[in-house]
Amino acid sequence: MPLIEPRVLKGFRDFLPPQELARRNMVEKIEKSFRSFGFIPIDTPALEYAEILLGKGGGETEKQIYRFTDHGGRDVALRFDLTVPFARFVAEHRGDLVLPFKRYHIAKVWRGENTQRGRYREFTQCDFDIVGSDGAAADFEILLMIRNTLRPLCGDGVVIRLNHRGLFNRFLSSLGVMEQSAEILRQVDKLAKVGKDGVQKLLEEITGKTESLRILDFVSLEAEGDYETVLEALKAKAGEGEDTRRLEELRRFMKDAGAADGFILDPSITRGLDYYTGVVYETFLTGLPDIGSICSGGRYDNLAGLYSKDKICGVGSSIGLDRLQAALEILDAENAHAGSCCAALACLEAGDAGKAQKAAEAFRLKGITCEVFLEPKKLTQQFMLAEKKGIPWVIIPEDDYSRFTLRNIAARENKESLDVEDAADAMAGM
Amino acid sequence: MPLIEPRVLKGFRDFLPPQELARRNMVEKIEKSFRSFGFIPIDTPALEYAEILLGKGGGETEKQIYRFTDHGGRDVALRFDLTVPFARFVAEHRGDLVLPFKRYHIAKVWRGENTQRGRYREFTQCDFDIVGSDGAAADFEILLMIRNTLRPLCGDGVVIRLNHRGLFNRFLSSLGVMEQSAEILRQVDKLAKVGKDGVQKLLEEITGKTESLRILDFVSLEAEGDYETVLEALKAKAGEGEDTRRLEELRRFMKDAGAADGFILDPSITRGLDYYTGVVYETFLTGLPDIGSICSGGRYDNLAGLYSKDKICGVGSSIGLDRLQAALEILDAENAHAGSCCAALACLEAGDAGKAQKAAEAFRLKGITCEVFLEPKKLTQQFMLAEKKGIPWVIIPEDDYSRFTLRNIAARENKESLDVEDAADAMAGM
Repeated sequence: MPLIEPRVLKGFRDFLPPQELARRNMVEKIEKSFRSFGFIPIDTPALEYAEILLGKGGGETEKQIYRFTDHGGRDVALRFDLTVPFARFVAEHRGDLVLPFKRYHIAKVWRGENTQRGRYREFTQCDFDIVGSDGAAADFEILLMIRNTLRPLCGDGVVIRLNHRGLFNRFLSSLGVMEQSAEILRQVDKLAKVGKDGVQKLLEEITGKTESLRILDFVSLEAEGDYETVLEALKAKAGEGEDTRRLEELRRFMKDAGAADGFILDPSITRGLDYYTGVVYETFLTGLPDIGSICSGGRYDNLAGLYSKDKICGVGSSIGLDRLQAALEILDAENAHAGSCCAALACLEAGDAGKAQKAAEAFRLKGITCEVFLEPKKLTQQFMLAEKKGIPWVIIPEDDYSRFTLRNIAARENKESLDVEDAADAMAGM
Repeated sequence: MPLIEPRVLKGFRDFLPPQELARRNMVEKIEKSFRSFGFIPIDTPALEYAEILLGKGGGETEKQIYRFTDHGGRDVALRFDLTVPFARFVAEHRGDLVLPFKRYHIAKVWRGENTQRGRYREFTQCDFDIVGSDGAAADFEILLMIRNTLRPLCGDGVVIRLNHRGLFNRFLSSLGVMEQSAEILRQVDKLAKVGKDGVQKLLEEITGKTESLRILDFVSLEAEGDYETVLEALKAKAGEGEDTRRLEELRRFMKDAGAADGFILDPSITRGLDYYTGVVYETFLTGLPDIGSICSGGRYDNLAGLYSKDKICGVGSSIGLDRLQAALEILDAENAHAGSCCAALACLEAGDAGKAQKAAEAFRLKGITCEVFLEPKKLTQQFMLAEKKGIPWVIIPEDDYSRFTLRNIAARENKESLDVEDAADAMAGM
């Protein structure tokens, strides 16, 4: 029989051990942070009724979604985000959920996107939301979680730019262009990509020249300075309202929590989705501006309107894990690729596998991850194998596995005749 | 617009917080154990070329697989197991892998199975393999990992029943029925399900009466007693060979490693797949015989034969996570459903959200997961909310968030005027 060529689909990829390990370590830290805030995980099926996922349908989504007819003749599709399944989930399980409900969901999604821009057709999303609370405390918690989850991973260069949809809408109303707000939002969202002049021209087609200039002026106010200054300037242009009071309250919370740095009030942040109704935000790394937002989100007032008459409000955010991982690789290449294993127990004789596992287990119980090498090659070859695998220590048994020589692979040094305790201490001390 | 009914596809399910939390805790422990043995994770796409996944094609797989044509006109399918993608992975990345390669892979798979038997169409597999080593040390490491990973989760009732395909094949040869071995294996594999008499009748149709009785006699030898006794009895029936020597060596390794209990030599274990060529095994819980094998596997000598001329041997196993989770729920219902969060900080005033988060963060830094309640309801209502969510402690701020009253929800007791340190100690002591 002819061989089948081993290959993956265009836009898909394998994760080899170093990348997958880095990804799982990253996810582990994120989850630990989410859980420390009392957020709990859920999961939903990868495959759903197409009707549920497409909702109102139309647009880009319909073109990109993986949709087909299953064995039972059902019109089904792979989820393309975690928001729509979450809306369906909340409508379906409303009675079983204690509100406010704080959940996170880390899972794969699929979009048949154009791959030319380096996009993948399978990627991982990481969503966290509080539903059933419309207070500023909920907005603030999500903002603080972004800061406190990403700073330990990426350093103090994590900056969250926030804005309020209501404020922008009031300003558009005062210009008399509120009817075109969805279109205007979409254009303003392109600011980072196409620049001020580009956006101004796009806006001009929608609103006319005068208004386009005033909108651009409004969304450029961030250049005015710190949060308080920008807020005053915005109030001067759009007047006071619920939205400016919310932005004020959030600022006080930031200060009370000792977390005032790292937040910028930026009226150009609009998030292109008409879904949002309150605060909106994007998160950037000051050292890596080109990478774009690594965590975006906002407040919405009707999560599950397609599936339920109950109006369920909430606030949430989503970390782009693939983007974040790319950023971490640049920021900290060494750590991102560290081997998973601390030590390898050398193989002296094939028939010693039982004793070797017993010794390795003693090290594992001391918290040292310990691989057992399986083949009785020369020690120098086993050292090379450890080096290839990124394992820093090789443990060589002595005296029928009661004492050990410790080989430091990087330093090319041996320490002889250690018991398990001392050997484990020496490795942990590294 | 009419509402869309929120529902999942037949055979699919949502994981609500308690189940998903239990599942993630279980996976975390399994991964930690795998990593302590120096196994590293990989991941592969959910969607692959149908040609790759179906291989030789035909049979049950072809009927159950989710297969469709994508936007680019490609014939694609969702993976139905993790073994086939792993074979493709090894063939494709052979040059980048250091052999022996020890990897694990925990991921969803999809099969359009008949759901009447309580089967799900989406489930999680957890595979771990060593490829590129044909030694008994590799067989033993996988067996030991099963034992050392599952015993901390399920207790000492974890029993691994093993056998060797070569031994059974030699016995069939001696009866002159080796040609029908694949069919015979499939029938013997039904022993637990249809009983001795049932299997004997099925075998009789294939081999005739005399041989069917002798096969049944052979596979029933486990009743003879301990590993050593059964091995002697098998040698008496089938003679000595590579396979009996391998089974002997494995026994010595078990004893050397101090892990002799929990392994049973059982000639009725055949694993219905013709894929296996060496040791094969299944894992049972003595307290829950009806649940079936929770971890099965064996040795194979040609993993990637469909995609590569290189013969790549290996040994591996797969934990059925859904089955294991069901078992854990029965064994330890309380732990399986524990809340994720240790404490909740009561909300005294909506405007205190910043101070509340600051105080909660101080507890988080002490390792106490701490949710912040967002709404200033009566304290009794907040205690009830904590109880509903399975949160054992409520922290009530005093003196402008410098001292705290600790409410033990189960005991309905308060301890007043504690600083962060003392309150954290009191909670950790529980």
